[in-house]
Amino acid sequence: MALYVQKYGGTSVGSIERIEAVAQRVKCTRDNGHQVVVVVSAMSGETNRLLGIAKDLDDSASRREIDVLIATGEQVTAALLSIALQKIGVDAVSMTGDQVQLKTDSRHGKARIQCVETENIQRQLDNDNVIVVAGFQGRDEDNNITTLGRGGSDTTAVAIAAALKADECQIYTDVNGVYTTDPRVEPRARKLDHITFEEMLEMASLGAKVLQIRSVEYAGKYNVPLRVLSSFEEGTGTLISYEDVKMESTVISGIAFNRDEASLTISGVPDKPLTAANILTPIGDADIDVDVIVQNSHGSDGLIDLTFTVHRDDYRAARKLLEHTCTELSAKDVQGNDRIAKISVVGVGMWNHPGVAKTMFETLGNEGINIQLISTSEIKISVIVDEKYLELGVRALHSAFGLAADENCVN
Amino acid sequence: MALYVQKYGGTSVGSIERIEAVAQRVKCTRDNGHQVVVVVSAMSGETNRLLGIAKDLDDSASRREIDVLIATGEQVTAALLSIALQKIGVDAVSMTGDQVQLKTDSRHGKARIQCVETENIQRQLDNDNVIVVAGFQGRDEDNNITTLGRGGSDTTAVAIAAALKADECQIYTDVNGVYTTDPRVEPRARKLDHITFEEMLEMASLGAKVLQIRSVEYAGKYNVPLRVLSSFEEGTGTLISYEDVKMESTVISGIAFNRDEASLTISGVPDKPLTAANILTPIGDADIDVDVIVQNSHGSDGLIDLTFTVHRDDYRAARKLLEHTCTELSAKDVQGNDRIAKISVVGVGMWNHPGVAKTMFETLGNEGINIQLISTSEIKISVIVDEKYLELGVRALHSAFGLAADENCVN
Repeated sequence: MALYVQKYGGTSVGSIERIEAVAQRVKCTRDNGHQVVVVVSAMSGETNRLLGIAKDLDDSASRREIDVLIATGEQVTAALLSIALQKIGVDAVSMTGDQVQLKTDSRHGKARIQCVETENIQRQLDNDNVIVVAGFQGRDEDNNITTLGRGGSDTTAVAIAAALKADECQIYTDVNGVYTTDPRVEPRARKLDHITFEEMLEMASLGAKVLQIRSVEYAGKYNVPLRVLSSFEEGTGTLISYEDVKMESTVISGIAFNRDEASLTISGVPDKPLTAANILTPIGDADIDVDVIVQNSHGSDGLIDLTFTVHRDDYRAARKLLEHTCTELSAKDVQGNDRIAKISVVGVGMWNHPGVAKTMFETLGNEGINIQLISTSEIKISVIVDEKYLELGVRALHSAFGLAADENCVN
Repeated sequence: MALYVQKYGGTSVGSIERIEAVAQRVKCTRDNGHQVVVVVSAMSGETNRLLGIAKDLDDSASRREIDVLIATGEQVTAALLSIALQKIGVDAVSMTGDQVQLKTDSRHGKARIQCVETENIQRQLDNDNVIVVAGFQGRDEDNNITTLGRGGSDTTAVAIAAALKADECQIYTDVNGVYTTDPRVEPRARKLDHITFEEMLEMASLGAKVLQIRSVEYAGKYNVPLRVLSSFEEGTGTLISYEDVKMESTVISGIAFNRDEASLTISGVPDKPLTAANILTPIGDADIDVDVIVQNSHGSDGLIDLTFTVHRDDYRAARKLLEHTCTELSAKDVQGNDRIAKISVVGVGMWNHPGVAKTMFETLGNEGINIQLISTSEIKISVIVDEKYLELGVRALHSAFGLAADENCVN
């Protein structure tokens, strides 16, 4: 008998029929003799519906009350799935964030989980119940309702799996696993059977939006085996764990990319200690996430250029802040480009395969794709290119690294 | 500085605009220097929407999960009203049933309040907040979500008012007070400034559906002054209290009625001890409420007839049970009528005014209305008539007892 935590997202529970299908899937696991804790999201569209009503009332409504409002979405799904399970003869009981005793800090709308007290869940498991947990929500130390931010139900599932020492945390979604790249861009993309936490972090943060990045971090930290599966079709999905069970030859796991990037360059900045910090601090203070950062010097004139990328939505705000900084630091000018994209090759094996970078740059060069920025880590190489080259670049790299279902590895 | 508990029902918070209007009303009370606890219902239609989804899944869904589901309706309103209050500069904080520590028994869907621990509310009041409580819900001793049944938000408001020793519990609704009868039947019906708890109980239970009967009982038990007011227009509404501040001459407070009645008669039953109990026990066991009960004997043959009324929705089920009983007890036959209505005259003063019954029966007789059953208590006389006479009877009695705004008392 194993203990599985299964998480079903908004589209998986988006209608009565889908909730019934999820109930059948849970029943299968139960019939095979396993214990199940299910974590559910709000039905698709529900959170946005509720946020819309709040916005009609007040554009800047308090986050505490927004959390009280939207936490109801997951509670509704939890009740409905419990009803669907009971109907097909599976003993089930729903639990809200406070009932599972999921404690968070007080950062409404983006709270971080502090602990899950398993006493209540364990008692219900001991009573042979399937437990259906309302995801995405918890309580702070003053018993205020908090939410974990978008995708927080994944994190709820991982946190509960970690606390219960579950055998596996299974994230059911609308894709049947993690792919070598987005199949909409490269139809020959191949589903991965295994991927490591580190690789998954790069794939997720780089735009292959299968799993919430925080939940992957959390799973890695507590070593909870994570499996991504489809709610809609059979299959074993992709297992994410520390074990690297790949063939030695497969250096690269996948090609990640992100369309919604913009780059900003401040040039001719006098190079002093803390210059980079002085440039980036106002951006961070404005809650704008900075992704790639590249700095280079002009040579002998003591001036530097600094380029960084931000989400495209933040481009105008970041540019305004940077122009202010430009004046303050007596720099030369600010340039920007909000029509760029990022492509990354990801793989834990690449650090001892120096040929990866060469293959990557050659492949792009042969397609006539100009590389604007390069950023590397131990398990990925990212390049910034004009967004019009995104699909071409991804397909060329996917092929060059032999990732397609019908290809052997070439590097 | 007074402390008011204000309750706003589903139609009062049925849209963004109405929630904003409620916020303004609360702000007025606050601006006058008073403390306010607001209790809200779900937005009108929301509870039925949620119940509809559950019913689509399973006609006989578990009451525990139904409670988890529908308790979200009030939580949504509480968050939205808090947002609306904050927008107009009123410090407000929402609280769910578990946060106000409203403890109930475990009868899901019709739970009874056991206690309200005021510590959390009092702390928020001390912080100068308006507290917006999600009505209708509580927690049982195992921390399961419970609901109090339809109209439970009234009971929530009264229970909190009692626990906080509030100066008044104000029930805002879509009528501007309690009337001598339903103005849709008798346009000359007059709003009452005062009515006693006992009279209100008869008016409510007899079909003048302004207030939930349990909340009136509760208010009477804990001596919480209750005021019914309109959410939509100014006015002082109707105060319900123990004090009888009516003029001595006004014996009758109002004419209540109920359309949805059905009567059943079992006749020719051998008269033995426990006969009435034997007839009514199966009805009670099937959770069918019996209202008026009248028994009379045939005279010398040792047989009796027993007639009782039930809600029209229960008519067929009750009739089936009664036919079974008829065979068991070797009674003569069962007859029924599901096209009847009940009309009652209510007033604490009537017990020492014997002329009330005479006036009532004469008035109906003069209109050619045949009385099928009569039932009396210290403060009311009810008659069962063919439903087609309902409006005619109500208007005739309203006039005969001088209740109209432009009439003087005639008895």
